[in-house]
Amino acid sequence: MRGIREWLTGPPLPTGRMAAERLNKIRALAAFSPDALSSIAYANQEIYLGLVVAGAAGLAYSWPIGLAIGALLVIVALSYAQTIPAYPHGGGSYTVARENLGANVGLVAAAALLIDYTLTAAVSLTAGAAAIASAFPELWPHRTTLALIVLVIVTLANLRGVRESGTLMAIPVYFFIASFLAMLAYGLVRAATEGPALYAATAPPPSAGLTTFLILHTFASGCTALTGIEAISNGIPAFQPPETKNARQTLIVMALLMGALFLGSIWMTQYFAIVAGAQETILSALSRRVLGGGLLYVLVQAGTMAVLAVAANTSFAGFPRLASVLAKDRFLPNQFAHIGDRLVYSNGMLLLAALTGVLIVVFNGDTHALIPLFAVGVFLAFTLSQAGMVVHWFRDRTRGWTFKALINGLGALTTTVTLVVVAVSKFLDGAWIVLLLIPILYAAFFAVNRHYREVSRELTLHGLPPSLKPLSEPRVVVPISGVHRGVIEAVRYARSISDQVTGLYVELNDGDAARVRTEWESWGLDVPLEVVPSPYRSIVGPILTFLDRTDTENNDGTLASVVLPEFVPAHWWQVLLHNQTAWLLKVALLYQRRRHGHTRAIIDVPFYLRD
Amino acid sequence: MRGIREWLTGPPLPTGRMAAERLNKIRALAAFSPDALSSIAYANQEIYLGLVVAGAAGLAYSWPIGLAIGALLVIVALSYAQTIPAYPHGGGSYTVARENLGANVGLVAAAALLIDYTLTAAVSLTAGAAAIASAFPELWPHRTTLALIVLVIVTLANLRGVRESGTLMAIPVYFFIASFLAMLAYGLVRAATEGPALYAATAPPPSAGLTTFLILHTFASGCTALTGIEAISNGIPAFQPPETKNARQTLIVMALLMGALFLGSIWMTQYFAIVAGAQETILSALSRRVLGGGLLYVLVQAGTMAVLAVAANTSFAGFPRLASVLAKDRFLPNQFAHIGDRLVYSNGMLLLAALTGVLIVVFNGDTHALIPLFAVGVFLAFTLSQAGMVVHWFRDRTRGWTFKALINGLGALTTTVTLVVVAVSKFLDGAWIVLLLIPILYAAFFAVNRHYREVSRELTLHGLPPSLKPLSEPRVVVPISGVHRGVIEAVRYARSISDQVTGLYVELNDGDAARVRTEWESWGLDVPLEVVPSPYRSIVGPILTFLDRTDTENNDGTLASVVLPEFVPAHWWQVLLHNQTAWLLKVALLYQRRRHGHTRAIIDVPFYLRD
Repeated sequence: MRGIREWLTGPPLPTGRMAAERLNKIRALAAFSPDALSSIAYANQEIYLGLVVAGAAGLAYSWPIGLAIGALLVIVALSYAQTIPAYPHGGGSYTVARENLGANVGLVAAAALLIDYTLTAAVSLTAGAAAIASAFPELWPHRTTLALIVLVIVTLANLRGVRESGTLMAIPVYFFIASFLAMLAYGLVRAATEGPALYAATAPPPSAGLTTFLILHTFASGCTALTGIEAISNGIPAFQPPETKNARQTLIVMALLMGALFLGSIWMTQYFAIVAGAQETILSALSRRVLGGGLLYVLVQAGTMAVLAVAANTSFAGFPRLASVLAKDRFLPNQFAHIGDRLVYSNGMLLLAALTGVLIVVFNGDTHALIPLFAVGVFLAFTLSQAGMVVHWFRDRTRGWTFKALINGLGALTTTVTLVVVAVSKFLDGAWIVLLLIPILYAAFFAVNRHYREVSRELTLHGLPPSLKPLSEPRVVVPISGVHRGVIEAVRYARSISDQVTGLYVELNDGDAARVRTEWESWGLDVPLEVVPSPYRSIVGPILTFLDRTDTENNDGTLASVVLPEFVPAHWWQVLLHNQTAWLLKVALLYQRRRHGHTRAIIDVPFYLRD
Repeated sequence: MRGIREWLTGPPLPTGRMAAERLNKIRALAAFSPDALSSIAYANQEIYLGLVVAGAAGLAYSWPIGLAIGALLVIVALSYAQTIPAYPHGGGSYTVARENLGANVGLVAAAALLIDYTLTAAVSLTAGAAAIASAFPELWPHRTTLALIVLVIVTLANLRGVRESGTLMAIPVYFFIASFLAMLAYGLVRAATEGPALYAATAPPPSAGLTTFLILHTFASGCTALTGIEAISNGIPAFQPPETKNARQTLIVMALLMGALFLGSIWMTQYFAIVAGAQETILSALSRRVLGGGLLYVLVQAGTMAVLAVAANTSFAGFPRLASVLAKDRFLPNQFAHIGDRLVYSNGMLLLAALTGVLIVVFNGDTHALIPLFAVGVFLAFTLSQAGMVVHWFRDRTRGWTFKALINGLGALTTTVTLVVVAVSKFLDGAWIVLLLIPILYAAFFAVNRHYREVSRELTLHGLPPSLKPLSEPRVVVPISGVHRGVIEAVRYARSISDQVTGLYVELNDGDAARVRTEWESWGLDVPLEVVPSPYRSIVGPILTFLDRTDTENNDGTLASVVLPEFVPAHWWQVLLHNQTAWLLKVALLYQRRRHGHTRAIIDVPFYLRD
């Protein structure tokens, strides 16, 4: 087991190497930007799918909608650029909202973010599968499988550690940026020589009217182009020092690239009046139009798939980090705060991988079906973060705070409006799921927190008399299934810790007890054997009843300890070949609440089978 | 938990009620015949699908193929009628093959039967879903879900116990028999008044030639009409006394019904030259033609679905019974031999339900895809059983043995020929899976058997000196994560069983140990505390190393016992909120092979959290 794990994720790293695992700007852009950059794949697709139902008249709105989203991008990017220096230790929406708007709002933001990270991974992987299946139509029916395979690869790469991810992931990211920009540049040349085409000639006949709702709905879907822009502000501590400056510069480069790729492709799609086939994404249709169907086209599709696969990586950086912050604040289980063998938050990664896998399977690997869920969480987190920043500047009041508050205020306003548009126009398409999940997660955070506070109250030594009366030697009961070597070992052990030992046999079939008693006595164990009948063939029940009865009879307030003879097979599969009675009994004893608040110790005496 | 289980499956029944749980003939027919009777649903469908590719010329072969299968039915039914009195305690293929052809052949038969039972359940449930979806086209895409829902219902009904199954299941069986026979009778009247139709006018154009292989392939698929005929001979002990006579009479009635339903529907389909639509079974098309599309037609489809659902019941009677026989012979895990709360073999039922569910999902709820796997196992089991009976009569040599041997010999011959036809013509369609699985199961049976024999050899007291030297008081180590109430309780318990107690703290971060040691000493526990550092953040590893080292240093051949303070939360979900360190440590200690063959006892001291 350990061998397989180390082969997959690498050998353990000592705690001392923690500080060395930082990213330079080139690697950080590769680690944090893929989500933001690759979102053009699904945002373009959603704008196209939203408008094409209204035919040529609808598709003519691509460019105006693209421009509106571009403006939103500028506002949100500026807003986050202000967050980075204000929160140099990581200014995720959770931190910003909690510090400025209170713990409750912070938790709402955290719930939204956890959902987003998961959806980012699912949407990116399914969109990646669609990108490559556009180039190889025989893969189209297998998009779910394809997305799951890539999920496994991404998970393993991340479990190895973030620096190695950085190296591994940088190549496809830069390959995508280069190939897509080159494609756009070549497209510009062709546009200049060929002139524009008209949707009137290419668009399918409209199946729906061009309503305001349709435009808003499409705008809402297209806003998924902005996802991922917050990743850098969440991940500042992963940058090499000076963290703040590096993070900010990386954010600006990323936003410029996002704008160029998104607006470039939207404009060019409309200029050439491009329409997608049944088993093809609109970006695939665009690049096929510009480059023809040859090797260059396949390379662009492969680059798109690769960057989308790497985009899932943003979630694998962000989700476990946020989960660990929540766990340290005691709103999520402790386990998420632990750093694994490879200095990454392995538990958070594994949970994210599992949730993403479920989403991909449940939604049949269909990006379009996942988008309505996606957009709500994204804009809720944006809004809370920006509103928090406004409050921050009002409290801060250092030089230039009014201007900064104005920018974040504009950010908060626009993202709020977008959030409302998204939630309303996509409510029935799936947004309701997320709007339901957020309060559920919020309640779960509180339940977890309440439990931890209660536990530390119960465990405190405050109020306990500093020297407790020593306990007297325990009475010991040894339940047996017969007389064999394992039982003999258990009874010998019991005798070594106590002089009050009793054997206990549960008789399932009349007459068995007499035989067992004869064997027991022939061994001269010098320990009394009690027998209880079990007409309903239960073993655990009669043992518990016996223990309760004898504890009561004994009347000194103590509970007998139980010694369990337990087989340990030589091979793991052999575990299936033995009745899990010892295990069931252990669970029953452990979870049987003690009436008097006393403890019953449970003692395993293993007997090792050689073969 | 117990409450939910009892609500679903009923309260426990005492062992004494075992004998009362027998079936009269009416109930036995309902319990054992549905598989046999309902097989017309998929057998007809397979004959139709096999021939329709050859157009009208192909479909003209329906009736001849039906007659050949009818002849096979007579031979197989007569053969099994001879098995019942010869093996009154249950003459399944496993028993008959093992007793007459040796243990190895018996196990091959058992493997084939286990596979068959599972496929019977899967095929019946998917065919049932197809029957009802033929009547309600909107259900057609949801056949997998439909089949799974019915699987859950059937499983629960069976977990309640076989008599209750009998009552619950008898109604749909008799409803199906009555409605289908009535439909055939009405069809005969219409046939007499309307005269025959010709496939030349209705069949789609052929897409394949009419080859001998096509005919054989179709015959092989159609032979699935015979499945289930062996169920009664497996289940004789479930009949009311006189078991043999009742079982035999029930078998004859069942075979006559099978013949009437199968030949009647095949003949009528050809007479009316019926062709099925894209989302419809051929039986649905037949009954729509005879009855029109109204309520009567829907009732026949509902009856077909119901009897197919109940057919899965045959598997739920047979599979757990066979598994228990194999478990008693020590070829399957012990657990399958146990009778559950409700006097049924619950573990076998749960395994069958799980396997069937997987098959339905993997094969997308498509009966046609499952059939090639199905037919091989069925005919392999038939062949081995009949061959065993021939040997039986040669050994028996009582009055009339030659005639009986002749009948079973004819059975063996015809089923062998069919088996070869099935295995060859359907090899690539999926028969290979079963031909591969049978030797794998066979090997698994042997591995299990070998393990159990080895264990009883190791556990024997033979050779052990009858009075063993008493063990001395154990050394005890208490690993701690800090100083709190749970730890105090654990140390007090350790002191009560031994004078040699050591606390053990694993230091993950520099400086923690000093703080813990101060608290430890301030409590005046009078127990030494050892500290081991852990630069790789592992807790289990350093503890194991410490134990090994101190055991070696101690040099008296004994191993220290380990006392584990363990939190027990008040609610099950809170388990997730605590590090599973105690649990991981327990597993590691249990599975760490002892070098000297000595035993290290593991002692849980639970600490109960109140909230």
